[in-house]
Order: sequence, then structure tokens, then C-alpha cells
Amino acid sequence: MNTLNQTHDPKLRSWVASANQGGCDFPIQNLPFGRFRTAGSGAALRIGVAIGDQVLDLRSTGLIHTDDMNALMAASPLDRQALRAAISAGLAEGSGQQGAWQGALLAQSALEMAVPCHIGDYTDFYTGIHHATTVGKLFRPDNPLMPNYKWVPIGYHGRASSIGVSGQHFKRPQGQTKAPDAAVPSFGPSKRLDYELELGYFIGRGNALGEPIPIQEAEQHLFGVTLFNDWSARDLQAWEYQPLGPFLAKNFASTVSPWIVTMEALAPFRSAAYARDAGDPQPLPYLDSAADREAGGLDVVLEVWLQTAQMRAAGQGSVRLTRGLSKQAAYWTAAQLVTHHTVNGCNLQPGDLLGSGTLSGPKPDEAGSLLELTLGGKNQITLPNGESHTFLEDGDTLTLRGYCERAGAVRIGLGECAGTVLPAVATPAA
Amino acid sequence: MNTLNQTHDPKLRSWVASANQGGCDFPIQNLPFGRFRTAGSGAALRIGVAIGDQVLDLRSTGLIHTDDMNALMAASPLDRQALRAAISAGLAEGSGQQGAWQGALLAQSALEMAVPCHIGDYTDFYTGIHHATTVGKLFRPDNPLMPNYKWVPIGYHGRASSIGVSGQHFKRPQGQTKAPDAAVPSFGPSKRLDYELELGYFIGRGNALGEPIPIQEAEQHLFGVTLFNDWSARDLQAWEYQPLGPFLAKNFASTVSPWIVTMEALAPFRSAAYARDAGDPQPLPYLDSAADREAGGLDVVLEVWLQTAQMRAAGQGSVRLTRGLSKQAAYWTAAQLVTHHTVNGCNLQPGDLLGSGTLSGPKPDEAGSLLELTLGGKNQITLPNGESHTFLEDGDTLTLRGYCERAGAVRIGLGECAGTVLPAVATPAA
Repeated sequence: MNTLNQTHDPKLRSWVASANQGGCDFPIQNLPFGRFRTAGSGAALRIGVAIGDQVLDLRSTGLIHTDDMNALMAASPLDRQALRAAISAGLAEGSGQQGAWQGALLAQSALEMAVPCHIGDYTDFYTGIHHATTVGKLFRPDNPLMPNYKWVPIGYHGRASSIGVSGQHFKRPQGQTKAPDAAVPSFGPSKRLDYELELGYFIGRGNALGEPIPIQEAEQHLFGVTLFNDWSARDLQAWEYQPLGPFLAKNFASTVSPWIVTMEALAPFRSAAYARDAGDPQPLPYLDSAADREAGGLDVVLEVWLQTAQMRAAGQGSVRLTRGLSKQAAYWTAAQLVTHHTVNGCNLQPGDLLGSGTLSGPKPDEAGSLLELTLGGKNQITLPNGESHTFLEDGDTLTLRGYCERAGAVRIGLGECAGTVLPAVATPAA
Repeated sequence: MNTLNQTHDPKLRSWVASANQGGCDFPIQNLPFGRFRTAGSGAALRIGVAIGDQVLDLRSTGLIHTDDMNALMAASPLDRQALRAAISAGLAEGSGQQGAWQGALLAQSALEMAVPCHIGDYTDFYTGIHHATTVGKLFRPDNPLMPNYKWVPIGYHGRASSIGVSGQHFKRPQGQTKAPDAAVPSFGPSKRLDYELELGYFIGRGNALGEPIPIQEAEQHLFGVTLFNDWSARDLQAWEYQPLGPFLAKNFASTVSPWIVTMEALAPFRSAAYARDAGDPQPLPYLDSAADREAGGLDVVLEVWLQTAQMRAAGQGSVRLTRGLSKQAAYWTAAQLVTHHTVNGCNLQPGDLLGSGTLSGPKPDEAGSLLELTLGGKNQITLPNGESHTFLEDGDTLTLRGYCERAGAVRIGLGECAGTVLPAVATPAA
């Protein structure tokens, strides 16, 4: 534990100068993992650790001997902590490794990042209680939350193949929609394309089929966290989702940020104050542990930024749509999700991704989707350049940002998760 | 096309004698693909083709140079047909290969089979209209079919990691359930464990993200068909599935048969008479093609067999619960599923699995699940040995079988898909 705590020491500085600048996402206290290649090289992916504006090529340091992120994620928590301590020590000011590791540093600007690991299965949860309530109100004003919500960590399976990394461009999805007053459905590009602001939890060690992970051990199976955008076509969703849930409304693209910020790096940024009211039912025993209650949820500041095509053409940067705190949004902890997911015997594997669900705060302007911000498309958002928006337009670039701040700790960032909407494909023969 | 048709010639016989016996699942007209190793050897998996009671080790023939089934599945339809023709010619009576290939034959009884390929993503559809209607009636007597059913091939994402091969034993899942008259949910082993009789469609060549597969090309992306059992815990499902669909009720285990019967082998067993009524809406243009209408659905006889622990102890074999025809059950063709899945730009990959959904026939005794056969658990089934059953009991072995028969063609089989229910794990600390 001493070793781990040293890696958080706010006095710790790196010989990589850019890591010591205030506001930097990747100080030496962070050390997130990603996969990279030299931009445009088409080379095999390698594992790197972000430090300041650089990437440490981890295999070049001799600390690891693999390019397989999933193998790294499968390591025991002790081995992971030892690796973190060794990276931290090597990058610290005064380290004897500086000479040897200088050649293992690459400028982030020269690299292209990939989805940080092979994602075998992806599950999306629905832990954002304010999101569930607001969206529920749009459909069921009298009874916005389903009766199961405060008992069951609601989740469903998503599509792994269409998850891309920040910078992803994807075509506006087409599909069937049916207007409430239409007799029959019609086909065409989605008119209600939305984002969803989420955290992604990556699984480290897995479990065998038939062997549930007790809540007391669940945290040890979490590797780290990314930003995650679960793009959603609301009009497709409304027509298709009964009775088996969202499908084509979601699986055309999802975007993850390139850096997995480890649970070790996030240790100082936890908060017991997650979105559970005193009058709420206690979780069933299998979802309840004193240690999980005490550790609590993640305390991450989450932001959503938008740049329209018109803004880009005018040389204007992104504008912030929302800002909120994950600890106020999530009803269930990541550990509870792991335990719930496996309680029936389902097996998780290293690299599996659990989405948090949309993390909307309690206030209307903290909403994590346009569906909420515009109240189902009824209220237009006016941007500083005079444009008005309800749902996403072709050419929009939407960027999620996240970071952790706390007195006595060095700020760490989750980086960013950006995606751009391209026009729909030409309609197939109709 | 002549080459392909030769492989179906009913006069064709093999020098592997067991392949020529009437009622054999694997005559020379079939030639399904699977992955095997010597039982108990722990050796790397190899690709084989079933012939009679033997398996042809395909790499030993020199026809392929890989053990990667997914790579084989990614081949072009022309290459696949050429491979099929070469295997057929080599196994045919009088072939010059007999001497060389004799050593590439292994007895099926000495082998252990695996899931036939790496399944990246698994999607389950809901094409069984009689199943959807009967199950819908249990919940909504007045309005059993959702308004979208005859327009949208309803589907949802499933869990790939927990798919096992025939012979799978799995523990009864535990989870939350809530009785209608209970104030709060409780935790324990599922009391309403069920099977679902499905076909599995395996994807061959994939498509790039953002590039839909037109209905005219969809069939070329199908590799072949297996039997598939989507085990379901109905009590977990009822409590968890709103609003995002089934999750823990399904992902504890699914079972696939070991042999992929190719679309080429199935060519003689198609039927335009699928479960679409004259008064039903025409499919939207993107789901409609003359060739698909004419080719129609698959014409497979499907059976469900049960052996209880008591029957096994008494040396009694399985009893048949149901028998039906896929062509009377499926509302959408496999090609329509491929096109619908990709119309929004979602990318399919070689080895992806599409479940058909439960293929219940129009008559009550053709139902593909116990939920239907027992009308939600109300009607007990009496077995020949006097036992009565509603849902699955610990120790039950449930086996799906499938085969194709048609005048002028040699019968081919899909083999079998068996799974056994083990008792639930000990309850976690409560």
C-alpha cells in the first residue's frame, strides 16, 4: 500500500517536463494505458502509457514483453500495482531510468491511437438515475422510473464490433421510423441522432463460467475507466425497442477514449455520496458490502463539447453543452455492476467493457444527452454563433471530456472522446 | 453452378462407408465444418468436416493451410464452393484421394468438439411469429404482437462469452425475481428455467462499418447454419427486462451444435412458404428482393428431446417433446436479418452468430419452449415414465435435433445440440 500511495504523492514530479504543467491530463500521478502506432504507419499496435504530451512505449522500457493489452489486463492486482510503481519510479524526477527511457518516449502528436484493447463483449448499464427518470418522464409522466430500477442494476448487451476510438467519423444511421400519426413506418436517415455521456469500465481479470464474483472481490476485477459515447438514434429506438430493447438505434457506432485510467490512479477520487437517497431500498445482500459503500462511486467531472460544421468553417472552437459530476449521477457502483453481471454465472473476460449508462446530473443543464437537454426535441439549444440545435447535425463533432480534482491530490484527466457525424449513405435501392 | 450441383447429386456415394447409411446426418451431400481436438488432449483446435461417423482433418488433406475457422469463413463464395467441390470429389467413391486421405480420417467418437468458430458478436432475433404471438398472449391477451413485429425483424444483442458447444453442462442461474404479489424482490435460483429452440446463422464475409449489405447480396454473407439453444430463466426475465430487454435471464449459457451446415449444402432445402400471410404488409423495399422471396426460408425439421435425471438413472433414453418445421415458424429469412442488421451501418464480421429466435410451429404441440408448451407453467407435461414437468429440473438433458428431407434429395442432418442443467451454485453470502 505504501508503494501504491507513493504513486499518488502530490509532490511527485516527472523528468518529462510537460507532465508537470498545471491542468495537464496526464501527470505522473495518472499513467493511463493505451495502444498506439506511428500515425499512418499501419504498424502493429503497441502498449503505451501517457505522460504529459508524450507516450512511453512500455515494451521498450523492458517492463513488459507483450503488445497484448488484454494479457496485461488479466494480471493480478498485485502485479498491476507493481507495474504501476515501476513506471512511476522510472518517470519520476531523479530516476536512474531517465537516460535509458528517453528513447522510449514518443510525442502523442505523432501517434495514432486505437481502441485500447480487444473488447470481447460490451454491456451497457443504465446507472444514471436522473437520466432514467427524465427519459422515463417523456414516455410515462406518472411513473417515470420502472419498479425494478432501485433493485436491479439494469443492463443490456451492446455491439462490440462497431466500437471505435476517439476521432471516429461515422455515417448517420438509416433505418425504420414511424411517426405517431403515421399508419405505416418509413425508411430514411435518423432525424433524432443523439450522444450519450458515459463512463466505460474495463474488466481486468475475468471469471469462469458458473463462478459469480462476490461484491467483496468485484473491485479487483476492474482494470480502469474511459470516457464512452453511446451514440443513439432516438427515432429508430422508439420504433424498434419493444419488446427486446435497443438494437439498430445503438449499434452503428460507439466511441471510447484512447486512455484507460486505472483504478489505482483513481483511488484518491472516490466518493461515498452517490445518487442513492436515504429512503431508497437497501441493495439486496449480494450487491451490498461495507467496503463498497465506503469506497463509493467515482468522482469524475464530466463535460460535453460541441463544434458544428459552421463553427469549424469559421475557425471557432467547441462550446461546452454540459458539465456534471459522475458521483451525483450513478445509482450503482462499478463493483455492483460486476457482481450483478456475474451473479447468474455469466463469465467476464479481460477487456470486456461495461458502459455506465448516461450520467446526467440532477439539474436539467447537467443532462448527458440531447434527448434530455431539449426535452425530447421540443426545446432548441441556441449556440453562441446563433445556430440552433435540437439533435445532432451532419458535420457535428461531439467531444466528451473528464477529469478528477480533489484537495490534496494532483488533478488527473481521462483525456477526450470525440466523434464526428458524416452524412448518411445513399439510400439502398428503394 | 454445375460443380455445386454435383455435390448434391443423390447418387453420389462416399468411400467412407458410414456416410452412405440411410438416416445418417452426415452423408457426402452435407460436409459440415467444425473444430475438434482428440478428446482430453488439450491440443490446439483443428478444422474438420463431418463424413458419416468420421471427421476429415481438413489441413491434413492439403486443401487448407489454416486452423482458423474464421479465416475460412471469410472466403469468397466462389472459393467456398471450390473447397466444397474438392472435398466432395475427394470423399466420393472412386476418388484417387482415398489412399492419401484415409489417414486424415478420425472417428468422431474419439474427438471432442468446440464452438465451431470464434464468435465475435452474437445477435438474437425474434423471427418465430408463433412464438412471439403465444408469448405475447401470456402478457397482453388483447394485443399479442407488437405493432412493429411485421415491419421490423426484431433483434437484440446477446452475450458471446457464455456460448458453449453441445455437451455443455451449466449451473442453474441465480438472480432477482419478484412474485406478482410480493412487495419486494427476492434472490435465489431460477424456478422457471427454459430452453429455446433456434437455428443459428453464422456470418461468412463481413462488411465494413458504414457499408450496409443490400438484400440482393445478403445471402453471400451467410456461411451456414447450426442448432442453437438460447436457455432462458423466465422468472429473472420477467423482473429485469423493462425497459432495455433480457440480460441475466439469457447470458448464463447458450449452446450451439458443433457442425456448421453450409448454405451450399442447404441449397436443396429451401421453401418459399415461410410464415407470412397474404394480408401481411409487404416488407419495406430495403428488405425485399425477388430472389430472396423465391429462395425463401430454410426447410429444416426441428425436434426437442428431454432426458431427466430419473430417466438417465433408469437407463431410459430421451423422449421427444416437440417436432416442427422451420419454414412454418420463421417470419423473416436469414438474408433479411443480415440486411436489417447492417442497414444502419453496423459491421458484421466472419464468425458472428445470428440466432433465429424460438422457432415454434403454428400448432401448440410444435412450440419451441416450455413457456409455450406449459402455457406459462400452468399446464404440466407428463412424461412416459410418469414424471411431470413444467420448467427444467436439475439433471435434465435437453437435446435439439434438426435435419432436412425432400423428395429427390439425400437427407442431411444438423447433428444435435445437447445441454445439461446442474444445480445452482451455493448462494453467495446473504
